[in-house]
Amino acid sequence: MKDLKDKILSEGDVLPGGVLKVGSFLNQQIDTVFLKKIGEEIRSLFADSGAEKILTVESSGIAIAVAAGMAMDLPVVFAKKSKTSNVSGEIYTSLVHSFTHGTDNHIMVSKEYLPSGLKILIVDDFLAHGSALNGLIAIAEDAGCEVVGCCSVIEKGFQLGGDNLRARGYRIESLAIIDEMTDSDIIFR
Amino acid sequence: MKDLKDKILSEGDVLPGGVLKVGSFLNQQIDTVFLKKIGEEIRSLFADSGAEKILTVESSGIAIAVAAGMAMDLPVVFAKKSKTSNVSGEIYTSLVHSFTHGTDNHIMVSKEYLPSGLKILIVDDFLAHGSALNGLIAIAEDAGCEVVGCCSVIEKGFQLGGDNLRARGYRIESLAIIDEMTDSDIIFR
Repeated sequence: MKDLKDKILSEGDVLPGGVLKVGSFLNQQIDTVFLKKIGEEIRSLFADSGAEKILTVESSGIAIAVAAGMAMDLPVVFAKKSKTSNVSGEIYTSLVHSFTHGTDNHIMVSKEYLPSGLKILIVDDFLAHGSALNGLIAIAEDAGCEVVGCCSVIEKGFQLGGDNLRARGYRIESLAIIDEMTDSDIIFR
Repeated sequence: MKDLKDKILSEGDVLPGGVLKVGSFLNQQIDTVFLKKIGEEIRSLFADSGAEKILTVESSGIAIAVAAGMAMDLPVVFAKKSKTSNVSGEIYTSLVHSFTHGTDNHIMVSKEYLPSGLKILIVDDFLAHGSALNGLIAIAEDAGCEVVGCCSVIEKGFQLGGDNLRARGYRIESLAIIDEMTDSDIIFR
């Protein structure tokens, strides 16, 4: 997605530790006009997928999932990182390590929102080591759902999470894949 | 908003401890077709407000803020509940007690996204004791921004957070206000 690559180059900031900061438009501040385009791009990539529901994980996946859901007229479910008093009943859960935050989280989804047999499209803002996607795939498959594809906005190709999932046969699309990232340069695949 | 009241009555679930569960369409699963209508309703309420940016707090406020931002063509900023490695630089912060989760969180926004003088519309999914709104107002005013209004989707009128803020002179709108809630009945204002 050319607009996205341009935006990453003009507004992205490489921080120490291989963190790409895109807070100005994607995950702290959200450029809603641009977000709409992201939703439409996801729709055009997965129009033929048969997806019936979109699954993501809080919190920075929510905006992306909502944009895709609005473009595709599909409901969104987001996994939570902690069990709150408004999560009742039985849940599916999976352990996810966040390299960005340095934490382990049990992510969870109420069973009622993932009925068996549903075709699921998983979306998230970033795909790096693939920890979040693996956790979401595990939850969807535990529920007896079919993962028809996964879409990240920005994939860090050099951290191999995406390529490992592709090797396992999943359809993984990313709107921009970064193969190399230094303080002064970002090289796309 | 009549559609919303109908949806609360047909899909909402009153849990012990005064928790209204609307996870089927608002804050675990998101009905994106309905969410679009919520965004349009917020636009029609605040079209004359002069709002230049929408502020909310992660994570369940994000979908509402994105819907409003898309309807109003305004950028969204969301406060985070923990400092992550992609939040760099100076921040505004405020202490918020969550009655639902039983926790205290320092919510924070990078200073770069709240330049002084900006007109801010604050949105959230729920307004109960007003803790989150008070925290967001404190952050916006610390930044030298003007809070032109606050909009919650569902206000628990019996918990007085909204009325206390109205008494302080803020423009507070809620798409549905619940004045009484029991296991068997929900009464709107």
